[in-house]
Amino acid sequence: MTSLNAILRQKQHGPITITPETSIRKAVALLAEKRIGAVVVVSAENELVGILSERDVVRSLASSGAETLDMMVAQLMTPHPTTATPKTTVFEAENLMTDGHFRHLPIVDDGKLIGVVSIGDVVKRLIDEQADQVRNLRDYVAGVHAA
Amino acid sequence: MTSLNAILRQKQHGPITITPETSIRKAVALLAEKRIGAVVVVSAENELVGILSERDVVRSLASSGAETLDMMVAQLMTPHPTTATPKTTVFEAENLMTDGHFRHLPIVDDGKLIGVVSIGDVVKRLIDEQADQVRNLRDYVAGVHAA
Repeated sequence: MTSLNAILRQKQHGPITITPETSIRKAVALLAEKRIGAVVVVSAENELVGILSERDVVRSLASSGAETLDMMVAQLMTPHPTTATPKTTVFEAENLMTDGHFRHLPIVDDGKLIGVVSIGDVVKRLIDEQADQVRNLRDYVAGVHAA
Repeated sequence: MTSLNAILRQKQHGPITITPETSIRKAVALLAEKRIGAVVVVSAENELVGILSERDVVRSLASSGAETLDMMVAQLMTPHPTTATPKTTVFEAENLMTDGHFRHLPIVDDGKLIGVVSIGDVVKRLIDEQADQVRNLRDYVAGVHAA
């Protein structure tokens, strides 16, 4: 079974990060500029401290209105998000994200943040892999019948 | 292959809708209350006219700031979204959503909006179905060897 490392190796760039003291105004500009749905929050020491998603921002808009833009990332982020390692399989990752109802999984290796995979990345890989299995098994069955 | 009808039948309720003249302030309150990521926009005649997602709101926050809350749904929604029918297969739906980079697919039958399926719904069903196929083929192969 493929590990998350295979997905990370195909990424064009490292994880997009932001600090907890950044304003939501700047955070939404970053999400728009990078065309991403969530950004990883790291301390000055590059330690993972949270994740901020579009959903966190929209939920705050509903409860606090326009004040949201002047809040800090630390106030809206999900602290201590679930993480995985490069060795976590795509199957395990899909289960983590489905069970936990989140779409972005930070990947930590040896205490350091090395990437983020999205539910889209994981599902695409999982579906491709299962389709390969079905094809191989069908070819095998066809071979057995032909022999 | 399973059709989207199988997913719709498991839904607890019909689609959550909103009108194009509603304010974004009210729209984000609805998204929060219903715990959903997008809402279908319908005319007074219940005709589908667009879809409004958390992403649309956050992108507007980045470009227009706090004014976003006083805008109308019609200004930020994606008009004329791609739709499917109850007979569309989960495989076709997954391809539509992956290719088009959207997460919510309105289902229209005989000109009427009858539901919305999310990429999560579709992918879960697709993965379950493929896992069944792999299991059946493996059982078959094991049977051939035992015979």
